[in-house]
Amino acid sequence: MKVAILGVGTVGTAVANILLKNKSIIKARSGKEIVPVIGVVKNTTKARDTSLPLTDDLEAVLAREDIDIYVELMGGVAQTHGIVKRILAKGKPVVTANKALLAYHRYDLQAVAGGVAIGFEASVAGGIPIIKALREGLSANHIESIQGIMNGTSNYILTKMMHEKVSFAAVLKEAQELGYAEADPTFDVGGFDAAHKLLILASIAYGVHGDPEDILIEGIERISQEDIYFAKEFDYTIKLLGIAKRRGSQVELRVHPALVPSEKMIAKVDGVMNGISVIGDAVGETMYYGPGAGGNATASAVISDLIDIARDGQGSPMLGFKQPLEEASLSLMPKDEIETKYYLRMHVRDEKGVLAKIATILGECNISIDSFLQKPDLTSRKDVTLLFATHTCKESDAKKAIEAITHLDFVSDIPHMIRIEE
Amino acid sequence: MKVAILGVGTVGTAVANILLKNKSIIKARSGKEIVPVIGVVKNTTKARDTSLPLTDDLEAVLAREDIDIYVELMGGVAQTHGIVKRILAKGKPVVTANKALLAYHRYDLQAVAGGVAIGFEASVAGGIPIIKALREGLSANHIESIQGIMNGTSNYILTKMMHEKVSFAAVLKEAQELGYAEADPTFDVGGFDAAHKLLILASIAYGVHGDPEDILIEGIERISQEDIYFAKEFDYTIKLLGIAKRRGSQVELRVHPALVPSEKMIAKVDGVMNGISVIGDAVGETMYYGPGAGGNATASAVISDLIDIARDGQGSPMLGFKQPLEEASLSLMPKDEIETKYYLRMHVRDEKGVLAKIATILGECNISIDSFLQKPDLTSRKDVTLLFATHTCKESDAKKAIEAITHLDFVSDIPHMIRIEE
Repeated sequence: MKVAILGVGTVGTAVANILLKNKSIIKARSGKEIVPVIGVVKNTTKARDTSLPLTDDLEAVLAREDIDIYVELMGGVAQTHGIVKRILAKGKPVVTANKALLAYHRYDLQAVAGGVAIGFEASVAGGIPIIKALREGLSANHIESIQGIMNGTSNYILTKMMHEKVSFAAVLKEAQELGYAEADPTFDVGGFDAAHKLLILASIAYGVHGDPEDILIEGIERISQEDIYFAKEFDYTIKLLGIAKRRGSQVELRVHPALVPSEKMIAKVDGVMNGISVIGDAVGETMYYGPGAGGNATASAVISDLIDIARDGQGSPMLGFKQPLEEASLSLMPKDEIETKYYLRMHVRDEKGVLAKIATILGECNISIDSFLQKPDLTSRKDVTLLFATHTCKESDAKKAIEAITHLDFVSDIPHMIRIEE
Repeated sequence: MKVAILGVGTVGTAVANILLKNKSIIKARSGKEIVPVIGVVKNTTKARDTSLPLTDDLEAVLAREDIDIYVELMGGVAQTHGIVKRILAKGKPVVTANKALLAYHRYDLQAVAGGVAIGFEASVAGGIPIIKALREGLSANHIESIQGIMNGTSNYILTKMMHEKVSFAAVLKEAQELGYAEADPTFDVGGFDAAHKLLILASIAYGVHGDPEDILIEGIERISQEDIYFAKEFDYTIKLLGIAKRRGSQVELRVHPALVPSEKMIAKVDGVMNGISVIGDAVGETMYYGPGAGGNATASAVISDLIDIARDGQGSPMLGFKQPLEEASLSLMPKDEIETKYYLRMHVRDEKGVLAKIATILGECNISIDSFLQKPDLTSRKDVTLLFATHTCKESDAKKAIEAITHLDFVSDIPHMIRIEE
């Protein structure tokens, strides 16, 4: 089985090298020799750690009749979408690690592919076989919820902030120096990477449609040591979670930092690791843990797709559904209707009547308070920090309250809120 | 697709009920209606919580031409082996949760089946799709090791013993009253159940042959609060682990209580839950967590196999290998050659020269001491308890040392050893 690798960076190099190194066991498992024969790169003169022949002539590789499977690791959305469709139209399977491509075009690709296999295990949580678990392993279940740490960079930063008393900015800088974070970290720490992955998982779990723009997304940039103080005080851990939950005929999708009870398994996933907890109506909770990034881990997932295809074609439908659900299909819940509990942190001047005014605003916005802490402001002697935990309330009400509180003259900055996930 | 369920106890009832309850989503995912049409039981008069028609005429059900798949939940080995072979010989797929059957006859069943599907996801770790993860999700990897908590009863008991200062006997009694442990708990707490599961996983990971009798098996019956004191002192957690490790051209398989560093994910798997950590040469460590038993969780796995078969036949070879490995196949390491670190606990009379004599014996058996603790014996004023941690040594040497120490007149009972897994 001849494989062309489109894009030979860290992951492409690892795919080529592992196919060579583990050739014998891969042949025993798949029943076929899986041979990478050509890699397509933009710059053929750049040194790469692989013996794979390279070319910059993508069109020539796409035209080769002897290629059995294409591995797409170029990244990008619009142009790559066109290329993948051309390959599928020729009846050739594609294996891809491109989460953005899938977040926007998964249903279109499924339609174009027809019976041709598309493997995308590597697009979510790197080396963890979570696509397979959800699509095949848990197929007997109605999925009640998915709760996942799907971005290693953010989890590394939050873990460091929890264990050492350092600021977001300081840990980010260190992560960039160690190569765990990009020069522009927005895609990771802003929650967008996790949102792409969440959307892919939600399609398999629920058959829902939607684009990344339909998801409530918040990043970890405003998490402070004060938030961590509160979390520790109430035995929570702060994690950037991708959450999908079924609510009647709707599915809510959201990515944001969350306060998670520290004794839960997902709270124990530390450092650059990923962990995804899935609750099914039959099985209960299962969790999947492992490296969410890195050349070799991602290549492990890419090659598992190649082996599945070599074994017997791919038995499962791409997104897990052979036919539409007979019951009314699920739709995405509008962002403003999502309900959670909140933690609110605000810096206010240490004056009489301040607490009463804030409590009044919260009440007017239908928000009731579950617990409350006051502590001296770390940066200003005249100020105090107020920390609230609320009962369940609507996203739109929480926004309204924060807007109103922000305009009070004794409030010194925009209040920060973190959702609580019990 | 018509399904016959052989054996309608807790799991069989759950399979029938979930197929009915989740009928619509199972049809959408599999492309077929999967309908349980008949259940075979010994006693048809016993009340059961299902509307499935029941019969005690196994032969009549085996003879029915309209049955598409048989679900085997009768248990038992010899007789069941014969029945499953007859079904496969007729070209009908079988889905089973019978770990003992697979531990003894998996290669025979694979040979008899030929191209006919055998699903056995439910045989290991209940609702966790670990068979699928190992056979398909991690297929690109040489598996370096498997380390799993595969018996919920034992894990419940050990968790209770770690958190509350209670004896093995007291927790066992409580677990029996709660229905977490059988009246005769030997199969669970003695490690035999975990050994069956370990052997199934090791076949998929390494292609190794062997029977449960070839595995080093020790139970948790002798774990005491003194062991737990030592564990906590050195930041270990005690878990009953099933361990498979590749050592050159051999694979070591063992089931025993182990001291595991408390910060490892596997150490955090508490109560009746199961967790299996797998290290692959490409992916690194991944872990799978969830309920290892219970009607609904096990049924979730059984039905996932039914759906795989309905979708497109079963794409993967039963035990993960389409053809034999070209490189020399792996063999089981003889039990006595296994090497680990040990913790040793012994009660001795509080006399001069005692420690020197024990240290001499350990030295003569090629065992060097890593750390040492002495504490007053909890039950006798004249005695003290000695707790040792050793460097890596051979199983046969450890046995020799314990034999020699047991015969010293100042030693009041057989020393207890627990292996240390770093």
